[in-house]
Amino acid sequence: MKKRPLILVTNDDGITAPGIRKLIQIMKMIGDVVVVAPDSPQSGKGHAITIDATLRINQVKIDDPLDLEYECSGTPADCVKIGIKEILKRKPDLCVSGINHGSNASINVIYSGTMSAVIEAGIEGIPSIGFSLLDYDWDANFEGLESYIKKVTLKVLEKGLPDGVVLNVNFPKVTKTPYKGIRICRQARANWNEQFDKRVSPMGKEYYWLTGTFENLDSGEDTDEFALANHFVSVVPVQFDLTAHTFIQTLNTWEFYN
Amino acid sequence: MKKRPLILVTNDDGITAPGIRKLIQIMKMIGDVVVVAPDSPQSGKGHAITIDATLRINQVKIDDPLDLEYECSGTPADCVKIGIKEILKRKPDLCVSGINHGSNASINVIYSGTMSAVIEAGIEGIPSIGFSLLDYDWDANFEGLESYIKKVTLKVLEKGLPDGVVLNVNFPKVTKTPYKGIRICRQARANWNEQFDKRVSPMGKEYYWLTGTFENLDSGEDTDEFALANHFVSVVPVQFDLTAHTFIQTLNTWEFYN
Repeated sequence: MKKRPLILVTNDDGITAPGIRKLIQIMKMIGDVVVVAPDSPQSGKGHAITIDATLRINQVKIDDPLDLEYECSGTPADCVKIGIKEILKRKPDLCVSGINHGSNASINVIYSGTMSAVIEAGIEGIPSIGFSLLDYDWDANFEGLESYIKKVTLKVLEKGLPDGVVLNVNFPKVTKTPYKGIRICRQARANWNEQFDKRVSPMGKEYYWLTGTFENLDSGEDTDEFALANHFVSVVPVQFDLTAHTFIQTLNTWEFYN
Repeated sequence: MKKRPLILVTNDDGITAPGIRKLIQIMKMIGDVVVVAPDSPQSGKGHAITIDATLRINQVKIDDPLDLEYECSGTPADCVKIGIKEILKRKPDLCVSGINHGSNASINVIYSGTMSAVIEAGIEGIPSIGFSLLDYDWDANFEGLESYIKKVTLKVLEKGLPDGVVLNVNFPKVTKTPYKGIRICRQARANWNEQFDKRVSPMGKEYYWLTGTFENLDSGEDTDEFALANHFVSVVPVQFDLTAHTFIQTLNTWEFYN
């Protein structure tokens, strides 16, 4: 690509989160960056879109006053939609989302606002990558990710991605030991073992907080969870065709017609 | 199954929507029903979960005072989680969601609250089915769906579903012509061509409404869109392993290590 690529940057932790500030820095080394990100945290929003309320966008100055940055009142998927249709002059060459403060590996991809932005861009036919760090700390250490983020981004710009495929990149928490490299993985089968913390309000009404612990049900060594546990960076190609193609043949033998 | 199955019923249009009232009627012919559904419409909520706010549940009486029904302040995925963990005495034998007022075929599955409840139950290892009618009218005609909903539900109870697979069942709008039957399909490749309706508030601030038109990009005759357009009931097996398995081999040739 001879011209500098146009890169749309978003996230789900909100436009001021350290993770997206780092990602913007890295993307500015690669291309022309436009940021459209939520004005407040949107974690766990899955692929929510705003159809029953209005949306606002405001241009903001955060780090460098020359940067083109917009905060949006909607979800990450809304940010991508309104970024493409209302803010950008042309379809971007790439969309990146993150760096998320916390894992989007395994089943977390389903609940992830970060990845919903990536998938939304993929639906629009834009090569798209989500980056997440397995560290929920707001002051998480994002050093050591930069060379990997550049490497994956430049490869995607060089080679493109097939229609219907986006990338989900997760990084183990930063320690003194450097990452062992990149592993191409499949999504591990896992779930959250929910616990509801039941409380009583000052007015005597019961309410609940959702909490839970992550449970990996998959011992495969080709999974993202295995790679991350072994200090590799995991790259999972993600699709939004949810069809369980391998089960179609069986379903056709079910004889619904009798 | 000799004992009457325990069936969890939910939706995304809210517990009083005509679609879920019809689905409850049908499920009561098949098993013991417990309803846990949102206390307000949750369309377009995708796989959102409530992690930054509290949840409330209230037992309610709507049609038959003997029915076990609970309204929940959360999203459809929250309803399934709290239903399983806090309300039901044991894991249900089946979860059904709907009948949605509007299509969840093709790419709509990604944005669908109805299907997020189904997928959430699937993650918990519960056989699970979503039902949707291609008619957004609150007073939509749900007659003519009953025999198909029973047929699909009884087959799933009889045969089970493989781990990681749930069903997405869509019905064409009811007309005088009966449905031609059931077609097992794949999800059509499509997107929404968004338009943002820009307005100015009485205080002079700009805001947007998200609107759009559905665009089918897929001419395949094995798709849900094709089946529905030809007056068949579409059944798509849906998985929540989002891995694009067919692209893993290519990614492994990308030489990230040089």
